[in-house]
Amino acid sequence: MPDFAAPLERLIVEFRRLPGIGQKSAQRLAFYVLRASREDAARLADALLDVKDNLGICAECNNISDAELCPYCRDPHRDRSSICVVEEVHNILPIETTRSFEGLYHVLHGSISPLRGIGPEQLKIKGLLDRIGKNEVKEIILATNPTVEGEATAVYLSRLLKPLGMKVTRIAMGIPVGSDLEFADEVTMMKSLENRREM
Amino acid sequence: MPDFAAPLERLIVEFRRLPGIGQKSAQRLAFYVLRASREDAARLADALLDVKDNLGICAECNNISDAELCPYCRDPHRDRSSICVVEEVHNILPIETTRSFEGLYHVLHGSISPLRGIGPEQLKIKGLLDRIGKNEVKEIILATNPTVEGEATAVYLSRLLKPLGMKVTRIAMGIPVGSDLEFADEVTMMKSLENRREM
Repeated sequence: MPDFAAPLERLIVEFRRLPGIGQKSAQRLAFYVLRASREDAARLADALLDVKDNLGICAECNNISDAELCPYCRDPHRDRSSICVVEEVHNILPIETTRSFEGLYHVLHGSISPLRGIGPEQLKIKGLLDRIGKNEVKEIILATNPTVEGEATAVYLSRLLKPLGMKVTRIAMGIPVGSDLEFADEVTMMKSLENRREM
Repeated sequence: MPDFAAPLERLIVEFRRLPGIGQKSAQRLAFYVLRASREDAARLADALLDVKDNLGICAECNNISDAELCPYCRDPHRDRSSICVVEEVHNILPIETTRSFEGLYHVLHGSISPLRGIGPEQLKIKGLLDRIGKNEVKEIILATNPTVEGEATAVYLSRLLKPLGMKVTRIAMGIPVGSDLEFADEVTMMKSLENRREM
């Protein structure tokens, strides 16, 4: 490997830790920082620490938040009768982007994974039950990931929540819109057939 | 756009300033930082400032350096009779990676660009002439980029240096190894024909 000056090498190593950043990208980013002004570098450095120091967890839904309640839970216009359950904070984003869901969220901060020793007790499920008890929740949408762990979590939650007398739904799995059947794996294709709807 | 907590939004904005990082990548990076430990975030923040605060310019070749001389200029094993001239600090890397050049470098910190008002006097050319005067330089390899500006800079330097009685060479332009003629643009193809060698 070429000899980089120590501080540059260190920055490259740190950039490489980020997801999706390989050696080449890390070098490109580091050289960019080298050419950028000190203020630009300081702003990024500040923002990194700000996120760690000034963000907490929403007391209601476990979303990240800089206040006691997150923007969704604070918003009086959102429909409090429907809660969409997701595994991680970043799973809210793709749902929000559709602009088609007006309810609230609940972040589990994980999924049931016996292989990794994660059971229901490690997830933020108790808070969800508390919320259901306090408010008039009519529907719980299970939007955990379409993986073995996400599916197991959805099944567990559905068994837990259905006896409480509310509608429990699961997001649909199938062929992505704009894709081609040719590219579908067999499990997705099977799900897509299984969930076929009358036209 | 979805409502991110202010510190998270700020970090996304800062990540987006980096080259090759769009909105989606910036979000992914920011969410990664959110889940990472505070130490990890602090290490990246420190490394960012360290690069700005503790790196200077090599007194010989203008490469970045944390000492008066950069690692190449310090290295007693490198061949002092040959200097490879590049536009920017990061242009050294692809050359060093080949392990086929044992000489020293000289970084111009730019290229001649009349359109952007950059003339030879804005480049670090004087230092190059000083080095040639001091040492027994036998060959100058012009490794400026194969662009209009890089080419203009190479032509200017070659006219300046040749009268001083040394070998002045230019890196070869042609079809990239492993590529296909099909993908070559016409200028590259022309260069490749022009620079053909007898087998």
